[in-house]
Amino acid sequence: MYAIIGTWKMSFDGVSQAHQQLASGAAAGDAVQHAIMSVEDNPAYTSVGYGGLPDHDGHVMTDAAYMDGHTLRFGAVLSAENIQNPIRAARLLCGRETNCVLAGRGAELFAMEKGLPMRDMRTENAMKQWREALQQENRKLDAYHEHDTVCVLALDEKGSLIAGTSTSGLFLKQPGRVGDSPIVGSGFYCDQRYGAAAATGLGEDIMRGCLSYEIVSQMRAGLSPQKACENAVQALSGHKMDLGEDAGSISVIALAPDGAYGAATTLPVFPFVAGTPHGVAIYAASPAPAGGMAIRRTNAAEMAKEP
Amino acid sequence: MYAIIGTWKMSFDGVSQAHQQLASGAAAGDAVQHAIMSVEDNPAYTSVGYGGLPDHDGHVMTDAAYMDGHTLRFGAVLSAENIQNPIRAARLLCGRETNCVLAGRGAELFAMEKGLPMRDMRTENAMKQWREALQQENRKLDAYHEHDTVCVLALDEKGSLIAGTSTSGLFLKQPGRVGDSPIVGSGFYCDQRYGAAAATGLGEDIMRGCLSYEIVSQMRAGLSPQKACENAVQALSGHKMDLGEDAGSISVIALAPDGAYGAATTLPVFPFVAGTPHGVAIYAASPAPAGGMAIRRTNAAEMAKEP
Repeated sequence: MYAIIGTWKMSFDGVSQAHQQLASGAAAGDAVQHAIMSVEDNPAYTSVGYGGLPDHDGHVMTDAAYMDGHTLRFGAVLSAENIQNPIRAARLLCGRETNCVLAGRGAELFAMEKGLPMRDMRTENAMKQWREALQQENRKLDAYHEHDTVCVLALDEKGSLIAGTSTSGLFLKQPGRVGDSPIVGSGFYCDQRYGAAAATGLGEDIMRGCLSYEIVSQMRAGLSPQKACENAVQALSGHKMDLGEDAGSISVIALAPDGAYGAATTLPVFPFVAGTPHGVAIYAASPAPAGGMAIRRTNAAEMAKEP
Repeated sequence: MYAIIGTWKMSFDGVSQAHQQLASGAAAGDAVQHAIMSVEDNPAYTSVGYGGLPDHDGHVMTDAAYMDGHTLRFGAVLSAENIQNPIRAARLLCGRETNCVLAGRGAELFAMEKGLPMRDMRTENAMKQWREALQQENRKLDAYHEHDTVCVLALDEKGSLIAGTSTSGLFLKQPGRVGDSPIVGSGFYCDQRYGAAAATGLGEDIMRGCLSYEIVSQMRAGLSPQKACENAVQALSGHKMDLGEDAGSISVIALAPDGAYGAATTLPVFPFVAGTPHGVAIYAASPAPAGGMAIRRTNAAEMAKEP
């Protein structure tokens, strides 16, 4: 069995290629890295990697993580600039007994020492949006619409389960701001015995519920990845509403060691990409009127019409 | 009911004072801040705040966090230099809808903007140890002995439950290295409905198990804080041993909404300070030969003789 799941339509090209690689016997870690690099390298996606929208001071600061479900070891880079593929730095940090999470200049020095390509991550389009946004008064920081952190979970024929995430974070974020994506247990978690999960949306909310660890815990207790995703999102958004807040912008994916997957969201529609030996496609998760989630298979052309 | 618990003997003075404040009706948040600042300000404690041992490049880089068990909101500073009391910066970040976790220069700018005192955190003693350590070949990074991150959990008469942590991290850590202390769910977690927990030891290991969130989850499932601490430490250190590793250096504390507390460790002896309306004292947790933990009350003079 092999399987791969990625967040948002933007992961379709990379996940499709990684799906083919898995079908040919590739390792889950290589599949995750390939799928995420494909999004990082595409300047059209303004929430990840090259072309990401800058922080308040005009710097594109990236976060990424990579976790190995066998060893429970992971690597993460936080608030790092000019690393062309943050997921590669995170993967190289995974496996270290100490110093597996590096922030800022330390992460950049590590990437340079390892010979990873460095580049100015700012595109003209991103800087134009930044200049325009600075003119607006009282701009509220908010999760992206229809795209955000790229999260990829993959299972290979040998049973390896790997999780990866990469993001440039909230547009106009305060310098140094770190969201959930590089935070173990919140943005991602992966334990090969039980499953993997990852989250995208407003990181500050996702971290309040350690959402990815909670999902994997529910899978450990025997729930399907779908039910685990639904329960965890419901518990956190329900608690937010008990506190008088709105449900928030929270979307999650999960993958079980048997290749079953799940997704849940507080949004009207959360698109994700899933591939198994039966094929690869874009799916849309939506809250069902009767509770739980409705998951329907769609395709890229259809999804382009979605709100 | 009120209660307070802090890690290591070094928290005794601050926790004792905070215990008195709680007895006089102080808020849990003020008690946590007071107890942690007392450790941060004391240069004799080389793993926290002023006088902390530097990273490989000779900089004292601090991590701290503060979490409110009612709102599940938290604040954290990561890899920040020259903030005299990192716990104060973390507390000021708690409650923000966005930008509640700040790394590096962003955290320092935030502290300066808020008017928090800044200072050179390097003492002559710390720099002497750093110079000497650099002479040694092949030095292995390891958790501190007999002290490490200060973690404080407090419950006040109104039922507020608060968690706080502060550390200067591993001695000679790679620049930018972040451990578990400022990472929600790993170094700390606090949900007023179920309880609070915090961890100290080798952060890279603690993060693999999202240890604080796991403890609070077990309290949610109905376990006592003592049993929840024991189970979580046993599961993570057991899994490490299954992987052929040693049990590691992992110690935890937990506090329930009814004032009951617990602690567990992989060390021979883990001292912690606990205060309730019955008084405040230093306790020692040790793995019991028959499994579980033996917790015995001790005092500072006795503890000084411990290995």
